[in-house]
Amino acid sequence: MGIEEFLPSGKIRLDQQLKFTAEIDKMTGILRRTLLVDQSRRENDAEHSWHIATMAMLFEEYATEKVDIGRVCKMCLVHDLVEIYAGDTFAYDTKGNADKANRETEAADKLFSQLPEEQGKMIRDLWEEFDAMETPDAKYAACLDRLQPFLHNTLTGGHTWVENGTKRSDVEKRMRIIKDFMPEVYDWVSVNLDRAVENGWVH
Amino acid sequence: MGIEEFLPSGKIRLDQQLKFTAEIDKMTGILRRTLLVDQSRRENDAEHSWHIATMAMLFEEYATEKVDIGRVCKMCLVHDLVEIYAGDTFAYDTKGNADKANRETEAADKLFSQLPEEQGKMIRDLWEEFDAMETPDAKYAACLDRLQPFLHNTLTGGHTWVENGTKRSDVEKRMRIIKDFMPEVYDWVSVNLDRAVENGWVH
Repeated sequence: MGIEEFLPSGKIRLDQQLKFTAEIDKMTGILRRTLLVDQSRRENDAEHSWHIATMAMLFEEYATEKVDIGRVCKMCLVHDLVEIYAGDTFAYDTKGNADKANRETEAADKLFSQLPEEQGKMIRDLWEEFDAMETPDAKYAACLDRLQPFLHNTLTGGHTWVENGTKRSDVEKRMRIIKDFMPEVYDWVSVNLDRAVENGWVH
Repeated sequence: MGIEEFLPSGKIRLDQQLKFTAEIDKMTGILRRTLLVDQSRRENDAEHSWHIATMAMLFEEYATEKVDIGRVCKMCLVHDLVEIYAGDTFAYDTKGNADKANRETEAADKLFSQLPEEQGKMIRDLWEEFDAMETPDAKYAACLDRLQPFLHNTLTGGHTWVENGTKRSDVEKRMRIIKDFMPEVYDWVSVNLDRAVENGWVH
């Protein structure tokens, strides 16, 4: 069973779209370092993408520039799709991040070519915009992508920070976009970083 | 550890929004009947919501009325949130569906009141619109909510159909919105239903 059981509709576009839908179900098997809030297990990419896309509906008021929430939701939904083939690269993994761009470009070529051309391009454009972190929508999505695992860490004894021996300066660097784009939220990040140092979760 | 470790920002709105974000992480623990395509385990509500929100970006061309994709993405993201307290009700569970409305209304009261009032209302309105299945956006979202588990069933030996002893007429009733709103996609549903009967997955 699995995708080999797919019964074609005979319409090339529709079959591509349905098979792509089945293919991206693999996001449920791409594990991140982050623990779920209940600490039962590690979070996967489908869950993380859902979570930050939903957050996009809630934190707009803190953004320093105007954002298009529907568009940010789309961006959040697809921002990690390439990890289906490239795997998740932990934010504080220096070695993994060195070849991340190449791995992800190859993965994007492989994944997005499975869709009708203009749809593959539409999603790839959103992903590239997210990655470049230059437009207001991309900056807002990037803030959520950093705020969500930060929140999880604050509620799980600093799990991924402790596991990785993370330094305060590393976290500050990672959270810099929140400081710039959502300063009011950064105030909360900052007091949590103080506590994380006090608790020995980061050093 | 967990939400009791939440360090308040001192700003009521922001604290509500952050705590709500942590609360909805419970979607990762609400299991549906559907198996993942790789059959490793049952799908959860966070994964399902992510999946159909992403599908919203791909199947617009088959809708018989104009839809607002960004808005549908939002609707898909929040359409099952009440299940955090009400639990998942299997589509073909007659008894469970009899008191579903009451259970979900109570759950909505409990969940959405945790947000700043206008944000709770915004999400509740989207959920109620989805449930009423009257607007084009809600019909489109409802189609995806039915198409996704149908696709999973076709790739997993009709798993939930077999488990429940489902009849063809039950599936047809459930898929009726696709027949009306995405007729070209329904053609594919229909040939898959034929195969499901041939294979003894539905009767």
